[in-house]
Amino acid sequence: MEKAISLAHGDGGELSHHLIQEIFVQAFGNNEQSKFDAAVLSMQQGKIAVSTDSFVVKPLFFPGGSIGKLAVAGTVNDLAVSGAKPLYLTCGFIIEEGFSIKDLKTIVQNMADEAKKAGVVLVAGDTKVVERGSCDGVFINTTGIGVITEEITPSFKEGDAVIVSGTIGDHGIAILSARGELGINSPVQSDCASLNHMLEKATAVSKEVRIMRDPTRGGLTSTLVEIAEDFGVTITLEEERIPLKDEVHGACDLLGYDPMYLANEGKAIIIVANEDKEKVLEAIRQTPEGQDAACIGVVTDITKGQLLLETPLGVKRMLHRLSGIMLPRIC
Amino acid sequence: MEKAISLAHGDGGELSHHLIQEIFVQAFGNNEQSKFDAAVLSMQQGKIAVSTDSFVVKPLFFPGGSIGKLAVAGTVNDLAVSGAKPLYLTCGFIIEEGFSIKDLKTIVQNMADEAKKAGVVLVAGDTKVVERGSCDGVFINTTGIGVITEEITPSFKEGDAVIVSGTIGDHGIAILSARGELGINSPVQSDCASLNHMLEKATAVSKEVRIMRDPTRGGLTSTLVEIAEDFGVTITLEEERIPLKDEVHGACDLLGYDPMYLANEGKAIIIVANEDKEKVLEAIRQTPEGQDAACIGVVTDITKGQLLLETPLGVKRMLHRLSGIMLPRIC
Repeated sequence: MEKAISLAHGDGGELSHHLIQEIFVQAFGNNEQSKFDAAVLSMQQGKIAVSTDSFVVKPLFFPGGSIGKLAVAGTVNDLAVSGAKPLYLTCGFIIEEGFSIKDLKTIVQNMADEAKKAGVVLVAGDTKVVERGSCDGVFINTTGIGVITEEITPSFKEGDAVIVSGTIGDHGIAILSARGELGINSPVQSDCASLNHMLEKATAVSKEVRIMRDPTRGGLTSTLVEIAEDFGVTITLEEERIPLKDEVHGACDLLGYDPMYLANEGKAIIIVANEDKEKVLEAIRQTPEGQDAACIGVVTDITKGQLLLETPLGVKRMLHRLSGIMLPRIC
Repeated sequence: MEKAISLAHGDGGELSHHLIQEIFVQAFGNNEQSKFDAAVLSMQQGKIAVSTDSFVVKPLFFPGGSIGKLAVAGTVNDLAVSGAKPLYLTCGFIIEEGFSIKDLKTIVQNMADEAKKAGVVLVAGDTKVVERGSCDGVFINTTGIGVITEEITPSFKEGDAVIVSGTIGDHGIAILSARGELGINSPVQSDCASLNHMLEKATAVSKEVRIMRDPTRGGLTSTLVEIAEDFGVTITLEEERIPLKDEVHGACDLLGYDPMYLANEGKAIIIVANEDKEKVLEAIRQTPEGQDAACIGVVTDITKGQLLLETPLGVKRMLHRLSGIMLPRIC
């Protein structure tokens, strides 16, 4: 096989055929239900969840992951936080002419590995090739389908606990470090991971989960502002309770980033009835992804949509969505 | 609102929020089932079809269509030819910094219009913004979900008729013309269209449809070679029966393109039992997309996978998949 992708790999002819057979079908396997074009799947009656995400992360490989791992975990997580059990993924590749076939194979293998870990099947795919300079290496879209076994109803009560499943900002700092923008070699790994198994444990121990979200682009703050605004609730966070790695804290201080706005790719926010808080924390702390889970705040009002941060000195300030650019292409 | 897309439109903060609300939610509408992130949909028990496609067509606007229209019709057609009734689409946008918001609105409106025509609902979406020079304007992924009401079983018999729903090569020539590569102003419009309503008519009048396919990238030849190889059948085409517009014929002669390999974006191949041929032709000719439908060949053997073309002089030659590059970025 050639060493680099050429335009002919994308024109639907002989080379496209080989590319699909030798790279994708080989890694994603069996797929009796699919000719890798339209997949036919059996579904039980009921509700399904569907989510789509394009990945343009730069660089393609970073400490703790790659665009391939991220493309699977990201869509798995979008489904899982909506209360669905992820089942199937499709993937669409846009590849730049000249891209290394070795790197493509690694990325595809990363996808296959992460899919196996998450228990999802890659059922359909598509590849397009664009001329040199018309895209940046590889972009990947994944779209996921899951079944909703138990629906989560976002009806909040005063006193509901706000849990985050671990330290924040790791992914953002790992990406900055991989880009060489830190000026130092940071040991921080991206948290990039599929969270469906962890979240299943949370919903298994509590029927009072109000909402789950993954704070990716825009970070913890933007996601919580969205929840607060969408449902008209006031969430008050306690700054000192928010889990943060020393290295992330240090890198943020150095560069002037706020970790509250940095992307996470393996963290979930879970808002749950106060009486179930400990059960949920205990359940998710037993998983590798949820070891550092903490309760970081409380729903303090259900009539006004805002996010407040209480500092260690007791000062409260309102937090807003990220406005203007912070970090492009972190996912 | 701003006139051009900036990186901040993609970082998950305030501007991303506005972009989604003001452009996508406005055009794609209602979506009670969706917060434009993970959509929750009700499904009947049974089989579903899933298909994904990324669109990188250049230029973004061309005679007869745009990347938006194409992104909807293309995925609708992938579902429809698999025998499914298309229901839902997701869309993932990758947008270049500096891209015109006016053009983006037009593209999104084209998608909404084509979705309405095809009877599908856009249920979830995603937008990413990359730096100037890191992609070429806009790339769109659509992933579609449909229900399979009646499964098509590809069991061929000698004598089965091969139908094409209209003239071939129109899309390829329209794209070349829009790129200014013809050297002349061609009046050819792209055939870009959703074919689900037409194909429903075909399967309504015949229970003996063997297979349906849309000959996009690689054209009529590559698609028929794939069918021949996948199912081990010999298909013999009669060259003079293949519908071809004079303008397409002329442009191909001039430029040395073979219309048999040029992309179509609004054509279907239907292979059907010989006894149902006329019924199917009559049914699809009543639709605007199938007016020029014709029977172009026959399954002449069910033991050997090959595609033969019989010229008007009675000479038969074997056709192969497109090998090497013909036209990049036609879809």
